[in-house]
Amino acid sequence: MLAPIAPQPEQKRLRLLDQRLLPEREEYLNCSSLDELIAAIKDMAVRGAPAIGVSAAWGCWLAALNLAEAPTPDWRDKLNAALCRLAAARPTAVNLGWAVERMRDLWLQEPGLGLPALITLWQEEARSIQAEDLARNHALGEHGAALLQNGDTVLTHCNAGALATSGFGTALGVIYAAVQSGKRITVIADETRPLFQGARLRAYELRAAGVEVRVACDNACALLMSRGLVQKVVVGADRIAANGDTANKIGTYGVALLARHFKIPFYVAAPSSSFDFHCRSGADIPLEERAPEEVACPGGSRIVPQGVPVYNFAFDLTPAGLISGLITERGVFTPPYARSLRALLESR
Amino acid sequence: MLAPIAPQPEQKRLRLLDQRLLPEREEYLNCSSLDELIAAIKDMAVRGAPAIGVSAAWGCWLAALNLAEAPTPDWRDKLNAALCRLAAARPTAVNLGWAVERMRDLWLQEPGLGLPALITLWQEEARSIQAEDLARNHALGEHGAALLQNGDTVLTHCNAGALATSGFGTALGVIYAAVQSGKRITVIADETRPLFQGARLRAYELRAAGVEVRVACDNACALLMSRGLVQKVVVGADRIAANGDTANKIGTYGVALLARHFKIPFYVAAPSSSFDFHCRSGADIPLEERAPEEVACPGGSRIVPQGVPVYNFAFDLTPAGLISGLITERGVFTPPYARSLRALLESR
Repeated sequence: MLAPIAPQPEQKRLRLLDQRLLPEREEYLNCSSLDELIAAIKDMAVRGAPAIGVSAAWGCWLAALNLAEAPTPDWRDKLNAALCRLAAARPTAVNLGWAVERMRDLWLQEPGLGLPALITLWQEEARSIQAEDLARNHALGEHGAALLQNGDTVLTHCNAGALATSGFGTALGVIYAAVQSGKRITVIADETRPLFQGARLRAYELRAAGVEVRVACDNACALLMSRGLVQKVVVGADRIAANGDTANKIGTYGVALLARHFKIPFYVAAPSSSFDFHCRSGADIPLEERAPEEVACPGGSRIVPQGVPVYNFAFDLTPAGLISGLITERGVFTPPYARSLRALLESR
Repeated sequence: MLAPIAPQPEQKRLRLLDQRLLPEREEYLNCSSLDELIAAIKDMAVRGAPAIGVSAAWGCWLAALNLAEAPTPDWRDKLNAALCRLAAARPTAVNLGWAVERMRDLWLQEPGLGLPALITLWQEEARSIQAEDLARNHALGEHGAALLQNGDTVLTHCNAGALATSGFGTALGVIYAAVQSGKRITVIADETRPLFQGARLRAYELRAAGVEVRVACDNACALLMSRGLVQKVVVGADRIAANGDTANKIGTYGVALLARHFKIPFYVAAPSSSFDFHCRSGADIPLEERAPEEVACPGGSRIVPQGVPVYNFAFDLTPAGLISGLITERGVFTPPYARSLRALLESR
């Protein structure tokens, strides 16, 4: 299994598999400072909501390490400011803020801690968050695998696999678990413009895991569904509101609407850390817009004439009503979500 | 206005604007032989159903010219074989076969003609076909413009503009005509994977014509529609069956389903030469599959890992039931098409 997030405490750094270069090159990025990590998150060298969360936990530790190089009396203020900067690196994935808050809460429980002791504490906590994420994905995979039947072809959007998490994956965790239980599953990875995570990352890791996969352009979805080539859809999530509305990679909403039209079950797989009960509905979830060049210059070659504006929403919102089930490490939640998700909230 | 198809009878060649290089480079391809033209059609240096039809008419003339260089007694057989090869260059756009048949029918009316006389006859006929296509687009544009309201934002898919025809365009002809009549129209061009005709060609020519245009990834369609950013959809067609089912660039079907969900009128604009009354429904229309590299290597950089298969259907079928109106040079046809289109058939 791929290990995209590899902390190296002895070297005081976080190693990240640079996902911008896949599948052509497997290169690691060494982050020794918080600024390097924030840049890696903003530029999507590391992406996928759970992976961003785990990286952010290590980012808190990096921030403390950086301050320890030349400690000043006001290090606590500086550290707090650094955590705020980290939490604001990208707006949509709730796991980022969730991980930073969990690290901060731990610190607040012992506000008198010195910097060296805090570094040790946070190193352990980041390691726990990473291990828990992996464990959650395995549990989530088991719950989701039961929804897939032997012989199913599953359409996926974007990458919610090992590369998007600390390992195993969410939507892909469901597929891995089904395959490991002996079911024959084929995956259609739609390419997921503008950054092609479906083609580049999902196909890459499914192939490495020996799962049969085929890539299609995003716009082939209706044709493939109409021909009976898709039995299930499973996607990940960047943030899920209390009513089940789900923010995920741009294009998810369209896939969900087409799945509804063709009566194909549409599942969202996400750990409990991707739920945000402060958001009552999708309307409360901020949707990131990114630089136009991502759309205008795929692979570096310009396809949009100079000066023509583009839309580059990185995410869209899928209304809860289109979601057949929310697959989490605590089981599969079904509509009506406003009621069923209360159990998840209470268990946190 | 752009003139993508420029015959040069004195030089015995057909000049084609090479659409593969736009928007970065404006270069012309000189076709002096039928083989060069067939390659240009297969490789999509010239594309768009009406443009393929007009080019094919000139292709018949080129085939005759080529044979006249070293005439043999069996030139008629060779010419017939050449026409069959030309008609089979691409399978979906009916205009290709339509134009070749029209040229062949003219020849069959005077089967005793010598090669030089046939060349003269076909040169005139190809010029007529090209002029008629342009005139049809203007007429079609007038009819369609009445469907657009001042202030509308129109979503388009692929390029059905001047570049896809002998000029003015079909879907874009509707927009040009509306703008010329004083309406303020904004266009959202979805990029149209795999070859990005929406981004590369549609945005290029709309901008050249001074029409406000914005590009979006294909998968942003649901989000844009859900936000009320789209008032109408207008697309072209590669072949329309007798019942109104429409083959057009891959992704059209998905846009039509989303438009239906969001209650947005969805129009198809096509000249009568794009209708194939031999096809009773879409099931009779052959859908081309193209080389996987078009999907796997956009702009030359590989996004799909080596060895992973891809789907590359070039077209999909939009059922007639999703189409609010078929805009032709003879007016706008509305459901039920099986009945209303009979008038079009009888007028041909």
